[in-house]
Amino acid sequence: MIRATNDNEYYELTSPTSMPKASGFLWNEKMMIHMNCRGYAVAQFMQPEPAKYSHAPNLEAKTFMQPEQPYYAHHPGRFVYIKDEASGNIFSAPYEPVRKQADSYTFAVGKHDIRWNVVSDDISIEMSLRLPKADAMELWQVKVKNLSSHKRKLSMYPYFTVGYMSWMNQSGEYVDELQGIVCSSITPYQKYQDYAKVKNYSDKTYLLADRKPASWEVNHERFEGEGGLHAPSALQLDTLEGGDARYETPVAVLQYRLELEAGAEREYRFIFGPAHDEAEIERIRQQYFIKRDHEGLDGFALAEQEYAAYVAEGQGNIQIQTPDDGLNNFVNHWLPRQMYYHGKTNRLTTDPQTRNYLQDNMGMSYIQPGIARDAFLTALAQQHASGAMPDGIILHPDAELKYINQVPHTDHCIWLPVCMRTYLDETNDYSILEEQVAFADSEEKASVLEHMNLAMRWLIQDRDHRGLNFINQGDWCDPMNMVGYKGKGVSGWLTIATAYAFKVWADISEQAGHTETAKQFREEADRTNAVANEYLWDGEWYARGITDDNVVFGISKDKEGRIYINPQGWALMSGAADEEKRKKLIRAVEEQLETPYGVEKLAPSFTAMREDVGRVTQKHPGSAENGAVYNHAAAFYIYALYLVEEKENAYRLLRKMIPGPDTEDVLQRGQLPVFIPNYYRGAYRQFPRTAGRSSHLFNTGTVPWVYRCLIDGLFGLQGHAQGLLVRPQLPADWDKASVTRLFRGAELQVEMKRDAAVRKTEVYVNGQLIDGDMIKDIQTGKSYEVLVKLPIS
Amino acid sequence: MIRATNDNEYYELTSPTSMPKASGFLWNEKMMIHMNCRGYAVAQFMQPEPAKYSHAPNLEAKTFMQPEQPYYAHHPGRFVYIKDEASGNIFSAPYEPVRKQADSYTFAVGKHDIRWNVVSDDISIEMSLRLPKADAMELWQVKVKNLSSHKRKLSMYPYFTVGYMSWMNQSGEYVDELQGIVCSSITPYQKYQDYAKVKNYSDKTYLLADRKPASWEVNHERFEGEGGLHAPSALQLDTLEGGDARYETPVAVLQYRLELEAGAEREYRFIFGPAHDEAEIERIRQQYFIKRDHEGLDGFALAEQEYAAYVAEGQGNIQIQTPDDGLNNFVNHWLPRQMYYHGKTNRLTTDPQTRNYLQDNMGMSYIQPGIARDAFLTALAQQHASGAMPDGIILHPDAELKYINQVPHTDHCIWLPVCMRTYLDETNDYSILEEQVAFADSEEKASVLEHMNLAMRWLIQDRDHRGLNFINQGDWCDPMNMVGYKGKGVSGWLTIATAYAFKVWADISEQAGHTETAKQFREEADRTNAVANEYLWDGEWYARGITDDNVVFGISKDKEGRIYINPQGWALMSGAADEEKRKKLIRAVEEQLETPYGVEKLAPSFTAMREDVGRVTQKHPGSAENGAVYNHAAAFYIYALYLVEEKENAYRLLRKMIPGPDTEDVLQRGQLPVFIPNYYRGAYRQFPRTAGRSSHLFNTGTVPWVYRCLIDGLFGLQGHAQGLLVRPQLPADWDKASVTRLFRGAELQVEMKRDAAVRKTEVYVNGQLIDGDMIKDIQTGKSYEVLVKLPIS
Repeated sequence: MIRATNDNEYYELTSPTSMPKASGFLWNEKMMIHMNCRGYAVAQFMQPEPAKYSHAPNLEAKTFMQPEQPYYAHHPGRFVYIKDEASGNIFSAPYEPVRKQADSYTFAVGKHDIRWNVVSDDISIEMSLRLPKADAMELWQVKVKNLSSHKRKLSMYPYFTVGYMSWMNQSGEYVDELQGIVCSSITPYQKYQDYAKVKNYSDKTYLLADRKPASWEVNHERFEGEGGLHAPSALQLDTLEGGDARYETPVAVLQYRLELEAGAEREYRFIFGPAHDEAEIERIRQQYFIKRDHEGLDGFALAEQEYAAYVAEGQGNIQIQTPDDGLNNFVNHWLPRQMYYHGKTNRLTTDPQTRNYLQDNMGMSYIQPGIARDAFLTALAQQHASGAMPDGIILHPDAELKYINQVPHTDHCIWLPVCMRTYLDETNDYSILEEQVAFADSEEKASVLEHMNLAMRWLIQDRDHRGLNFINQGDWCDPMNMVGYKGKGVSGWLTIATAYAFKVWADISEQAGHTETAKQFREEADRTNAVANEYLWDGEWYARGITDDNVVFGISKDKEGRIYINPQGWALMSGAADEEKRKKLIRAVEEQLETPYGVEKLAPSFTAMREDVGRVTQKHPGSAENGAVYNHAAAFYIYALYLVEEKENAYRLLRKMIPGPDTEDVLQRGQLPVFIPNYYRGAYRQFPRTAGRSSHLFNTGTVPWVYRCLIDGLFGLQGHAQGLLVRPQLPADWDKASVTRLFRGAELQVEMKRDAAVRKTEVYVNGQLIDGDMIKDIQTGKSYEVLVKLPIS
Repeated sequence: MIRATNDNEYYELTSPTSMPKASGFLWNEKMMIHMNCRGYAVAQFMQPEPAKYSHAPNLEAKTFMQPEQPYYAHHPGRFVYIKDEASGNIFSAPYEPVRKQADSYTFAVGKHDIRWNVVSDDISIEMSLRLPKADAMELWQVKVKNLSSHKRKLSMYPYFTVGYMSWMNQSGEYVDELQGIVCSSITPYQKYQDYAKVKNYSDKTYLLADRKPASWEVNHERFEGEGGLHAPSALQLDTLEGGDARYETPVAVLQYRLELEAGAEREYRFIFGPAHDEAEIERIRQQYFIKRDHEGLDGFALAEQEYAAYVAEGQGNIQIQTPDDGLNNFVNHWLPRQMYYHGKTNRLTTDPQTRNYLQDNMGMSYIQPGIARDAFLTALAQQHASGAMPDGIILHPDAELKYINQVPHTDHCIWLPVCMRTYLDETNDYSILEEQVAFADSEEKASVLEHMNLAMRWLIQDRDHRGLNFINQGDWCDPMNMVGYKGKGVSGWLTIATAYAFKVWADISEQAGHTETAKQFREEADRTNAVANEYLWDGEWYARGITDDNVVFGISKDKEGRIYINPQGWALMSGAADEEKRKKLIRAVEEQLETPYGVEKLAPSFTAMREDVGRVTQKHPGSAENGAVYNHAAAFYIYALYLVEEKENAYRLLRKMIPGPDTEDVLQRGQLPVFIPNYYRGAYRQFPRTAGRSSHLFNTGTVPWVYRCLIDGLFGLQGHAQGLLVRPQLPADWDKASVTRLFRGAELQVEMKRDAAVRKTEVYVNGQLIDGDMIKDIQTGKSYEVLVKLPIS
């Protein structure tokens, strides 16, 4: 069963087998942990590149987070084994590795902690995980309670995976003075030039305890023995053997002996994480376990408060109450949290893709716009004087462009106005356009306005003779890498997207008083839309592009990849599609791309390489870019539907994207409704068995677009230079909704109601009907009561 | 228990728990498989770089073979599960994953196959693995026999790991027409330039069966269920579910139902391997299972014969009979096989390190000298016109220098004469010196003689003002990468080694009639030895080098890394050490470096980074280069001891290196005596618990040097331009030994005997006492009876 609890502060799962990959995630300023309901974990910290302190049993490839993460017996995890000393019976919490069916089981994913309560053999185990705000470490609490009516003698063994640390050097030992286990390693390297980096790494993994253990084990092989991880040989001993691990796979296991009277309980606290040396571990021990403040709280207890406060800073700027409970819960609690994570961590990379960086900060405009402002300036300082934007934005002096950022893409410029628009809507801070910023290849500074003009002009010149935008080795779809690598192929989506970007930029320019610029880019947008209609309209929808060999693709005569979502949605946004085209393409999307789990990115999924399109066609059908319900693309489309006031369509698709226990297919998705994943598996018409499964990846540009859909679309409470535009697009069957909207330092309590007496929307502010739909003169620090009367649909 | 069986054709282990990492290995012209006694496997094939068809459960790093390979529950393996349909009892063979203690267990590692016989629950399972000669595939036979006195109904399930193939695309299905399972994937890549390579890869993994299965499973998660790999949920079903794996971890499992009368048996055959497409798999099925020759044998049966013949070509050129059974067995059966593996496969790399390539082919001089000849010419064609040798030799047009071959080392030239010497000794083919070969950076050809002279002169000029050879970022010890990276540090070992190389080259030149060259290089050798004695002699032994900052290291005042083996042995070889120094350094080695498991490479092992020495000091104490019993270095030292006729010392150390059931510590080593590993764990005096453990890696330059120790040293039957030199150095307690020596097409039956009547060695050929110790005029195709009378020691 899945349910929201504690005033929607938690999502709970009551069986570890119904959704084996269900998980929650926590992050702070140094690390991220993806915690699985069964006790498996994927954790990374920054030094400055992502690194691990709890490793797989073999030498893992360094790569991005894997979609649909497979787990296996020796996958890194955090468990406790419980042994009844009288009977010898063993179980483990949360579930792995013993896999004994508990009498009761709860996995509760909260905003600032993750908890389990497992009852087995009349023993209750409460486990919880928190992070501090600024250190890379896990804070664990384990409470053991005797639920039986007689005294019990137990052994409790926390087991924390250290794993295969390094082929160069690895070891483990118990350090008495630290009351903990310290495992050491040297990150493998071969070139002496790398030593300068490696020598500062936090290559030690430690487990500190607040109570002295009866015994310990640091040697994985000795612990497991022939019993296997599900029944470790060492648990048959009275006491763990101790000793050390010398170039043997380390593990961190402690043994505690408990004698608990009926009803009695005991609590333990542990810290697990990476460190550079023992001196640092000692400092951690002092800070978290030894020193106390004036109220007698140690650092461990204080960290809980501090972290909760840190996460609470990530509130969004709407709180909603609608007839849709699942939506309410997700929007009020989880969506801003996921958006905040992106804005705070930049996805734990030192070189985010430019389009990701801009969109993540578009989302931050709703939470901490100062961070968004800095990000736009950071990105523009890495623009080339030609106007071109780089493929990734370097955030650390030691960082370099890696992986996909070494492949040239042509779409980065369009995101500048598109994302900045939201920042300006929220803040009205047009002063950003006057900021002076240098270039990657020139010390000479220019205003942000000029930077943006250059970016727009770069898009105009990076076109073929027809006026279509080159795609090079990719645009928003990374693996569409062979459409235009010879320098001729063009992107249908990108061409249309430039028209939208020009329009947005024209609006911004006009607002900033640059009417000539605005006029010029409106003309460019019109020209671009005309070109799109001439070369890309296929009769029922828009083509995705034209290859180096002048083959139009993403069209009706294609057997696979006939229709792509992105050109359709953006043609609604850019205005390329007139009324007739609009109807046709919306129908085509509904017929060919819509599934019970949302809108697919393309269909039918490719099942074989198409060499003139590229790598996307080799990806697994229904996965990531090849026909998944790619939520980022789906969110663009929903946003586009709101722009053209297709509110019923938009809401239907929005609800398919947002996970929730009210969603019938939550088990098929296999994910708790605490984040929107980057995709749900697609290829619904080809491979229905697996369609709908969550990728379980929470890094995605989807979330700020969903927020925009809510602000600009569903609730229609979008900022504007003159104030707040009120244009709700509630679905017809909602008779009311209320929204608390934080806006430029004011709080607006907005009540929306159907009213049979009105023929068009009426807006009342503090009881006064206003003229039109713009609330003006909103003042910082003030509160407003807003009533919106909506006609019956 | 460990024992040699079948006329020493096999080594057997009778418990999977006494030596959990015991293994054997098979190779052919396309692949290598390292098969563990418990059923785990590490297999690689070339396309052209090493690739896998049976993967780990996560995305593994591409790296060299890992020492002391850790295994874990989901490590790739090949198993069969057996279920008694009446009782529901389950066990697995060989041992994993069920880990049921068998009633009897045998793991037999042979030269051209690997076998198990497991008896449990009155059922006998015989499993065997073979390879064909030229295809990348595994040929498995499984025989199930009912040992009970009543009819049994069983299910047998072969389980072959496919694992996590790719994040881009992976799937699995049963293909009826092929009677087998085909799992498909796309090797991940991101740059379109890589597509040209990737598209030709063998990215499919198949399991073909010679009998139609009752059911199958291709989905790992569905197979394992909540039961775990040790008790898979699918085995509780009557029939496996079938279905497919779609972006789910694939596995290859079949189910066979057997009804066996008492004493009855049934045999199954399977083929497991990589393929490019289904058409290729169909061709394999036709060739191995369908088509038959005139005797009715199919390709599977023929492959067995062909492969046995292929391996048999790898005989060495001595067969020995001595009082030391362990030595006899290892030298007659296993040592040449390991040497042949190196010569045939070049360690499954496309860019072997130059020194490895030359030494591996030094070994091939004893087996197939034509291959060695080609290798010398291949290597010299990649020499620079300056005389410098590259760090690696490119063996495939698509190959490039990788990993350690991107780090500049300075020793490669010395191996040219040192290794060619053996080729010339064996073949007397001085014509190789007249071959015309071009350079890497010049089309202009020069004779091999001139190439060699250039190499020697390059060594003379790559020195500092004192005449000591620069070390740059490493010499024979790769990770000694910070001694001389600033351009000043020098290598003590390399300086001494150049003196030896000059002497060897002088001998070769003289033999080829170039007396002036010979004279010149003898003088260079003398000068070099003098310099070594001036700057490197530390009082009791030779220093390892002098750092960029002019700090001499590997000397008595060092706390760690006080003494290194290599400068000592090579100083015996080069003649740098006079009688007094010889005695001193041999004593120092015995006292500080000798352990029960052999001679350590350096001692004490470093336990912390020494920044002026480099990465070696960060490697785990006792591992690889940091204080291991590094057999390659130990073999140099043993060879040096034979050169100075320290025969008792030499034999004692030789016996410590050669694994064997007669070695008391075989369990500590944890390895069957079928190969010499690259190291036994060292740091014996610091960490005695783990000392002696085998690395389990069989790629090592050790083996040809051990063979040279036997040929040139122990049995003293070394080739020479004039014939065969007979100078045995049998240990004092051997009263006889016989050797069948193949030499230049002749066969010499050599009987060595102690004879109280002789004061010095006497050699009789076909009954005739010869003058001196050189057997001349040996003719191809003839046999000789040689009697060697040795004085009582």
